[in-house]
Amino acid sequence: MRLGRIGYVNCYPIYGAIDRGIVVAPATLVTGTPNELNDRLADGRLDASVISAVAYAQHADQLELLPDLAISSDGPVRSVLLLSRRAPQELAGARVLVSASSRTSVLLLEELALGRWGVKLDLTPAPTEPGDLARLAATEHDAVLVIGDAALLLRAQGNYQHVLDLGEEWKRWTGLPFVFAVWAARRGVDRSAVRDVHRALLASRKWGLANLPVLAEQAARATDVDQGDCAEYLAGLDYSLSYRHLAGLTDFLRRLAGRGVIPDGTLSFVGAA
Amino acid sequence: MRLGRIGYVNCYPIYGAIDRGIVVAPATLVTGTPNELNDRLADGRLDASVISAVAYAQHADQLELLPDLAISSDGPVRSVLLLSRRAPQELAGARVLVSASSRTSVLLLEELALGRWGVKLDLTPAPTEPGDLARLAATEHDAVLVIGDAALLLRAQGNYQHVLDLGEEWKRWTGLPFVFAVWAARRGVDRSAVRDVHRALLASRKWGLANLPVLAEQAARATDVDQGDCAEYLAGLDYSLSYRHLAGLTDFLRRLAGRGVIPDGTLSFVGAA
Repeated sequence: MRLGRIGYVNCYPIYGAIDRGIVVAPATLVTGTPNELNDRLADGRLDASVISAVAYAQHADQLELLPDLAISSDGPVRSVLLLSRRAPQELAGARVLVSASSRTSVLLLEELALGRWGVKLDLTPAPTEPGDLARLAATEHDAVLVIGDAALLLRAQGNYQHVLDLGEEWKRWTGLPFVFAVWAARRGVDRSAVRDVHRALLASRKWGLANLPVLAEQAARATDVDQGDCAEYLAGLDYSLSYRHLAGLTDFLRRLAGRGVIPDGTLSFVGAA
Repeated sequence: MRLGRIGYVNCYPIYGAIDRGIVVAPATLVTGTPNELNDRLADGRLDASVISAVAYAQHADQLELLPDLAISSDGPVRSVLLLSRRAPQELAGARVLVSASSRTSVLLLEELALGRWGVKLDLTPAPTEPGDLARLAATEHDAVLVIGDAALLLRAQGNYQHVLDLGEEWKRWTGLPFVFAVWAARRGVDRSAVRDVHRALLASRKWGLANLPVLAEQAARATDVDQGDCAEYLAGLDYSLSYRHLAGLTDFLRRLAGRGVIPDGTLSFVGAA
């Protein structure tokens, strides 16, 4: 069993106990960026992985979701930001740079722009990882969508008048959490092996949520972000998949399906043993 | 395998081909009212059944949903009506009778009253089946919630100034379909038998949706409702469970869980074979 993991801070609460050997996952862990993991699960180089909600929907016929496990924010997410020199309603025709690293965040931005702010954005992909921020500053733009550690860093520099947290904007618009990532397994993979991995992930989450200060310290060491900010960031994330998370997830997917961005479909889960 | 079915017209498109022997379901069919089936599935007298969305949520720890199968309306449902002598915003303190036959419809009415009309209703249970309508007319009331055949009949009599279709009101409020019923199996039941029944239900639905005029004729014979109205009613119902239906279902459940009416939980599905 090959299980994908992202090295980002937002996954620490799920993999922390597995990384420390406190929980044993009967799997080989493969670390990658979100897009790498999405691709590897889609073409069978991984058996199970954390993947974006959109990647799930694009490959739903080959995948089954692991129950009760996701990465969401029910309000501000802190790490998915539109930093802008104009109010969002005035971004029509503006030069908006977007992270090339997260298709889900770009689609969320488009939904908010169309549905909440009433503007159609003209988006330009750009490198926006932490190492790209100096070059980004020298590139002409009115707004930039940044995610992950780069978002935390760029916000702290205070160079933009408007800071729009896309998790918070989604919550204000829909009243719902936004689900950024889910866990899925390929359909052909042995179900009992998938259930063993699922159980390990849930056990590791239990440890992680009980040990957020330890994980915030690790996060501060791994990034250039202040430990207090890391702690606040982790505390604002949510890893369950209850009715309101499912409502947020499917509300987003039905909007994308309605625009023809993803095929319409349904959620399929790995069943109970 | 004991499989529950409701004799109501809205289930004809799912069971029609099974009833006619066109599709063979490897199960003993047990017919009952919604509340009877909810109870029997909860206490193990049935292995699988159509049940209300609310009954699923109340017994979610014992049940798994069958994928891609539900009874919804994405707009007017026609058979769940609040017939009222006052505008809905003016129903505070009014005498509102509600069907004793459908807890889901009563909860939907409460959500709409609180969230959309801004009134807290004072509800009085009352018999509102077709045979009760003469007595109902002699009972003092400002409004009445009626469901099923009784709703179609009472609306046709034209005695109420305000006709509120709760499926339509929900759609206007949330933008989403309303899921009235789902199919679920008990967790202990053999999965391959459940999957066989699920396949039979999907095959029967395929026949049913391709033969709605036949079913409308059967419905008109079984009720006192005009065949054209039966056809229109059946055409307005929806039997799939795609993203937008799941969004409607979980949006309703998270609202109920938020008010403490049902326990918070998640959707569990029978997995693929």
